[in-house]
Amino acid sequence: MSHTFDALSQIVDPCDLLTEPEDLIPYGFDGTAALKHKATCVVTPRNVEQVQAVVRWARDEGVPIVSRGSGTGLSGGSVPVDSGIVLCLVHLDQILEVDPANLTILCEAGVITREIDEAAAPLGLFYPPDPGSMKISTIGGNVANNSGGLRGLKYGVTRDYVMGMEVILPDGEIAWLGSKCVKDVAGYSLKDLFVGSEGTLGLITKVLLKLVPRPRARQTLLASFDSMEAAARTVSEIIKRQIIPCTLEFLDRKTCQCVEDFAQVGLPTEAAAVVLMETDGVPSVVEDEADAMEAIASENGAISVERAEDDAHAARLATARRTAFSALARIRPTTILEDVTVPRSRLVEIVSFVEEVAKKYDLEMATFGHFGDGNVHPTILTDETDQAEMERVEHALSDIFDKTIELGGTITGEHGVGLAKKPFLPRQFDTASYRLLSLVKKSIDPEGLLNPGKIFDREEPASA
Amino acid sequence: MSHTFDALSQIVDPCDLLTEPEDLIPYGFDGTAALKHKATCVVTPRNVEQVQAVVRWARDEGVPIVSRGSGTGLSGGSVPVDSGIVLCLVHLDQILEVDPANLTILCEAGVITREIDEAAAPLGLFYPPDPGSMKISTIGGNVANNSGGLRGLKYGVTRDYVMGMEVILPDGEIAWLGSKCVKDVAGYSLKDLFVGSEGTLGLITKVLLKLVPRPRARQTLLASFDSMEAAARTVSEIIKRQIIPCTLEFLDRKTCQCVEDFAQVGLPTEAAAVVLMETDGVPSVVEDEADAMEAIASENGAISVERAEDDAHAARLATARRTAFSALARIRPTTILEDVTVPRSRLVEIVSFVEEVAKKYDLEMATFGHFGDGNVHPTILTDETDQAEMERVEHALSDIFDKTIELGGTITGEHGVGLAKKPFLPRQFDTASYRLLSLVKKSIDPEGLLNPGKIFDREEPASA
Repeated sequence: MSHTFDALSQIVDPCDLLTEPEDLIPYGFDGTAALKHKATCVVTPRNVEQVQAVVRWARDEGVPIVSRGSGTGLSGGSVPVDSGIVLCLVHLDQILEVDPANLTILCEAGVITREIDEAAAPLGLFYPPDPGSMKISTIGGNVANNSGGLRGLKYGVTRDYVMGMEVILPDGEIAWLGSKCVKDVAGYSLKDLFVGSEGTLGLITKVLLKLVPRPRARQTLLASFDSMEAAARTVSEIIKRQIIPCTLEFLDRKTCQCVEDFAQVGLPTEAAAVVLMETDGVPSVVEDEADAMEAIASENGAISVERAEDDAHAARLATARRTAFSALARIRPTTILEDVTVPRSRLVEIVSFVEEVAKKYDLEMATFGHFGDGNVHPTILTDETDQAEMERVEHALSDIFDKTIELGGTITGEHGVGLAKKPFLPRQFDTASYRLLSLVKKSIDPEGLLNPGKIFDREEPASA
Repeated sequence: MSHTFDALSQIVDPCDLLTEPEDLIPYGFDGTAALKHKATCVVTPRNVEQVQAVVRWARDEGVPIVSRGSGTGLSGGSVPVDSGIVLCLVHLDQILEVDPANLTILCEAGVITREIDEAAAPLGLFYPPDPGSMKISTIGGNVANNSGGLRGLKYGVTRDYVMGMEVILPDGEIAWLGSKCVKDVAGYSLKDLFVGSEGTLGLITKVLLKLVPRPRARQTLLASFDSMEAAARTVSEIIKRQIIPCTLEFLDRKTCQCVEDFAQVGLPTEAAAVVLMETDGVPSVVEDEADAMEAIASENGAISVERAEDDAHAARLATARRTAFSALARIRPTTILEDVTVPRSRLVEIVSFVEEVAKKYDLEMATFGHFGDGNVHPTILTDETDQAEMERVEHALSDIFDKTIELGGTITGEHGVGLAKKPFLPRQFDTASYRLLSLVKKSIDPEGLLNPGKIFDREEPASA
C-alpha cells in the first residue's frame, strides 16, 4: 500500500491522508451494529478537483473507493471494503448559495444537515428532512441514502427536496444532474437515480435543494394508549379527517419503559403505546387540528393526552421519541436497529408480529417509529459476542423481513440496504427488477470501482 | 409486413389489430405540430399477457415498438418509427383499487387521467396533476412523460404521485417497481428512472398513485397588469409572503387579445399580462390568502383584479387560461407550442426575450404558462407549408433554447424531449450526463427495441 500512499499524497495535503492504524480505526465502521472492516487509508479531499484526481487515480489502479460523510449510516454503506480506500467528503462543507426568490439552497456534500435548515430559517424558509442524525450527518450522505426523518408524512423525505446535484462519475468526469427549475423533463431523471444509490454510482459533491416556507406555528401533543390498536385507530381517524400532521411517532410498551427509566419524561408506565403528534402551518389551522387530534385520541380510548403549552414543553414531550434509541441502547451491549416499512394500514400487524418473534426466539425487543409512514424500527437488544443469541437474532430478522414483504412492505424505509440488508433484497424484488439493479450499476460503473459489494453483489446478469 | 400481421393476429383479437391505411392515419401523429410518420400497423392489447406476447414477438423479430396512449403528447414521443409497430395501451383501462386507508389508487395504464380524480373525489381525496389534456390523456402516458399541469407550484407534477408501477421490459419480463410504502429505500429508485422515460425503457402497464386530502375550499382571482414586470413583482411578493397558491398562470398581451376575440371573457384589451391566481385548502386560510393576493396585486399596479364569487364565476375566469391554446391555434394553420422553463426569478427575462425573437425573425408569437413554476409556453403561429417561414421558426426556437439554458433553465418543463427537442438536448446536458442517458438506455434496452430514436440517438458511447 505504500505505492498507494505515495500517489495519494501527491493529490491531497499530507494532513488529509490518514494511514496510521490508530487513525484508521474510526473509519472502519459506521452507525450499524456488528459491521466493521479495517480501512487501508483515508483520504479527505478539500475540493472537487482533488476528488476527481483521487477517482482517476483509483480507476487507473483498479482500487475500489468507499465514500463517506460523517459515518452515521445504519446499513453499513460506508464500511470499508477489501483493498479499497476510504474517500471522506467532510471537508467540502460550504453552503454556496441561498436563493430566496427561487426557494433553493446550494451546498457542498459535506455540509451538516442541520446547518441547511439553520441557513434557511433567517429567511423564513424551511428545510424539512430531519433524520435522527441531523446534528452530525452530512447532506451528501443524506442524499446518497435518501434519508427520512420524523416529518415524512407531511413533508416527504430527502428525495423530495433534491433539485440537482454535481457528481463525480467512476471515470472521474463531472456531471451536473437536474436544474433549478421546478419542472424539468429533459431526459431521464438521472438525479433521481443517484438519490439513494448509496455511493455505488457516483460521488455526490454538490447538492441543490428545494426550500419551503417556514411554518408559522406548531402544536405538540403526546397521547398514551393501553393498546397499539387504540393508537392505530387514532392515527387512522386523524388521517380520515384529512389532517396530515407533520409528526405521528410511536413508542411501544417496552420502549416507553426504557425511555421513562432513562429520561423521566412522565410517561404512564402502564401505556402499551405512546404517540407523539405534531401539526404545523398557519396558526389558526394548527390550533383547530390540535383540538381535533386531542378529541380523536380521547374518543379512541387514550389513557392520557398531554398538550404542550410552550416550546420548552413541546421539546420535553418530543424527548420521549428523540431519546428512544439512546434509552434502548443502554440495556444490552449491542443494539440492532431495524427499519421495516409497511403500508400504513398494516402497521399494527407488523408491530404485533415483532412481539411474537421476540417471544419465539427469546429475544429482548422494542419497537418505535413513524406511525404515519408505516415505518417501524424493531430494535433488538442483544450482545454480538453471544454467538447462540446472534443466531436467534438472524432468524428473528429473517422472519420479520418475510412478514414485512408479505404485508406489501419494504425491508428498509429510510436506512438503506448497504451490507446489512443486502442478503434480503432479492426477497423483496422480483427477478426482473432485481436484475435491473445490476444492469444499471454495470452501465455506469463497469469496473465496479465505487462501493463494491454494497446493495447487491455484482454479477453478470443472466441473459433473458 | 404480412408476416407481422399474421403473428400479431395470433396474439390479439382481429379487431385489436389495425392494418388498413385509412385506419392507421390517426396513429401517424400525436399532439405535436409538423411531426408525422406512417404507422405500419397498430396493435391494441386487452391484457398484460397480450402486451408481453407482443413484446416477446417483437424482440424475437427485431421489430421496434412505439407505445402510445391517447396520443396527446407534445414532443412527438409516440410518432411511429420506420419498420416499427404501434402498441396502443388504451384498452388497459380499469381502476383496480382505491385504498383510502393508505391514500393510494391502482390503475391500469390506459385509464383517462381525469377519471382518477373522479374516482378519488367521492372519498374526499384528490389526485392533483392536471395536464391540459387530462380529459383524454392516459395515466400511462402521463407517467411516461412526467406530465405537469396548472397546479405544479403547490402540488408538484406526476412524478410526485407515482409510488409504484408494473412495466414490461424489452425482454418481455414483467417488473414491479416501488411499493405502497410512503418511505422505501430498497435499491435504486427504478420507478423514478422509468417516470419520464418516454417509452424508451419499458412499457408501463399499471400505476400505483398517491392521493391527498381534497382541499375544502378554493378562491380564484384574475388580475390584469400593464406590464409583465408588474405581474412578476406581484408573483414574487406572493411567494415572499409565503403564500404558495395552487395556480399562478399568466397570459401575455397577444394571448389576451386572442383569448378575448375567441371567448369574450371580458379581459382588458390594454393588458400586457393577465395572471390567474388560485389558492385552495382550509376555508379560513384560503379566504385570508385570497385577500392577501388581491391586495398584493393592487399594490403592485394591477389594472384590475376580479375575484370569483362562486364556482361558475371561477370557471369563467379560468376559461381565460384554459382556452389560451385553442384561441391561439385559430390564427394560423400551424401552432407550435413550446415549453421552456427557467428558475422562477428569470421568467420576465425569458418572456421579454421571446418578444424580441418574434420581432427579429418576423414571426407571430404569443406566450402563456405557469408563472409560479417558471414554465412558459412560447407559441409560434405559423404555417408548416411555408418553407421560408419555417426556417425562421427553427432559428427562433434555437435562440430561445440557448437563452433558456443561459438562464439556468430547461428546454422542456413538462412536454418531454421525444423527437421535437432531441436536437437541442445536448446543449443542456454536459458531456458526462448526456453520455449517462445512452449508458442507461443501452443497459436496459440493448437492442434498441423500445421507441428508438426518441430523446437521443443511440450510439456506442465513446469510452472515457
